[in-house]
Amino acid sequence: MNKQELINTIREKKSFLCVGLDPDTDLIPPMIKNDSRHPLFEFNRIIIDATIDLAVAYKPNIAFYESQGSRGWESLEKTIDYLASHPKGPVFTIADAKRADIGNSSRQYAKTFLANLPFDAVTVNPYMGHDSVKPFLDVPGKWAVILALTSNPGASDFQTLNCRPGTAKSPPDTEGTVKLYHAVVKACLSWGSPENMMFVLGATRPESLAAIRKTAPDHFFLVPGVGAQGGQLEEVAAQCMTHEVGMLVNSSRGIIHASRDDDFDIRAREAAKHLQEQMEKILISPP
Amino acid sequence: MNKQELINTIREKKSFLCVGLDPDTDLIPPMIKNDSRHPLFEFNRIIIDATIDLAVAYKPNIAFYESQGSRGWESLEKTIDYLASHPKGPVFTIADAKRADIGNSSRQYAKTFLANLPFDAVTVNPYMGHDSVKPFLDVPGKWAVILALTSNPGASDFQTLNCRPGTAKSPPDTEGTVKLYHAVVKACLSWGSPENMMFVLGATRPESLAAIRKTAPDHFFLVPGVGAQGGQLEEVAAQCMTHEVGMLVNSSRGIIHASRDDDFDIRAREAAKHLQEQMEKILISPP
Repeated sequence: MNKQELINTIREKKSFLCVGLDPDTDLIPPMIKNDSRHPLFEFNRIIIDATIDLAVAYKPNIAFYESQGSRGWESLEKTIDYLASHPKGPVFTIADAKRADIGNSSRQYAKTFLANLPFDAVTVNPYMGHDSVKPFLDVPGKWAVILALTSNPGASDFQTLNCRPGTAKSPPDTEGTVKLYHAVVKACLSWGSPENMMFVLGATRPESLAAIRKTAPDHFFLVPGVGAQGGQLEEVAAQCMTHEVGMLVNSSRGIIHASRDDDFDIRAREAAKHLQEQMEKILISPP
Repeated sequence: MNKQELINTIREKKSFLCVGLDPDTDLIPPMIKNDSRHPLFEFNRIIIDATIDLAVAYKPNIAFYESQGSRGWESLEKTIDYLASHPKGPVFTIADAKRADIGNSSRQYAKTFLANLPFDAVTVNPYMGHDSVKPFLDVPGKWAVILALTSNPGASDFQTLNCRPGTAKSPPDTEGTVKLYHAVVKACLSWGSPENMMFVLGATRPESLAAIRKTAPDHFFLVPGVGAQGGQLEEVAAQCMTHEVGMLVNSSRGIIHASRDDDFDIRAREAAKHLQEQMEKILISPP
């Protein structure tokens, strides 16, 4: 799915919701866990059917599948196949893998998530720099979603450090100092385009969203941390929404594990609907 | 394998060699590729048998297995089982996965590589901070190997930026400025111990090894970049070897793909032997 198709889907569905498919086996209702060879997929299938008219994107976190061994991988394969061929689609699909390695290894990861598994996008950790990121950008028609400022507490350990890019030439003063996550975004702008690159920016720090929006006016942001992690949707939209929308807001546990009982699909739909209705208001009259 | 057992193994084998098991399907001899249901494992099995008296550690890079789908995962499972039960063992085993995510996702990755697959250690990307790293350190008797300064060209994009940790309180001058990779090592020291944490430091920048050795005198370093990437073994040892050795040097392609023909096991052994002989000299009379 390209950028214009994503924007069209958002306008049609009146939603910029991404549903995180991070099924925790401890929270899946026993009915499903005990009755299926592929409980993660069965769970996902029901969640997808309950939410697909309200969501424009789905984002399985690979950790939850990998930890279930080869059966988990089969559930992941079945999930992306189900999403890719759903009659109520198309939806934008993101493999939340947070991968990156030296070039020849990153190429293997790009093959895994953007070819073998036909996701539209994969999340990428920028720490190892350009040759670890570019193999994902080199796949035609696909996207790399770069971790910039994440929504977890540890984001404050390194991502928010003050840094001086181009240190060899710049003078030893505070001019030109930027936070590491801002330096990451600036560097990435020259590696990809708004057509094949997004940035992860946590809703937990809305003040930072506006600064990054100035640096990257045309890129989509993938914003986690609304809901379970406490960010506020309207505040986030005020900081970074553009005339092309320019943002996807992810909710995982707040939707898929809204209930641990057999009514999990009904509760998931309610939680998704609650977010979609807020998003519709914001799309009609942007803050 | 704990730290003292690792040191004992190094002394016995007169080697601190780690062999990177990154089998590129394009470089595996046709004989093996065509005749086996699990060519990656078959290739690894022959490489392991040819080198295990010369190496103390093996490090499969997960990208190369994941890209082969569920068959690739089976090869990875067979490889770690083969290593864990080899009659010429024990050897130290590292899943080169470069994972990390928010806490509950990192716990899933720790389960995958340190429990389901019984590796001794897993490589971890520090960008997301303490709560993304700690789940790996929480597994008793296992290790996290933190990426600090990697050996690829992109290491210069962010890892070597000048940063000011503790920025809120420190004055806006150059005092207290450190490279990002150094800030990573300093922060990690309070999250783990020399008994459950190592650092990846590339051989391509030996001058940096000495500085990090001062900061982390008791931690093992995992040093890639000798051989194919051009670092020099003796120079590296001079910068960071300790009375407990304190270092593993990794070689991947330089050993396993020394030949693309049917003599790949003989050439792999020669390449490993060449490194082991240099290591033996260094262990007898440290630089």
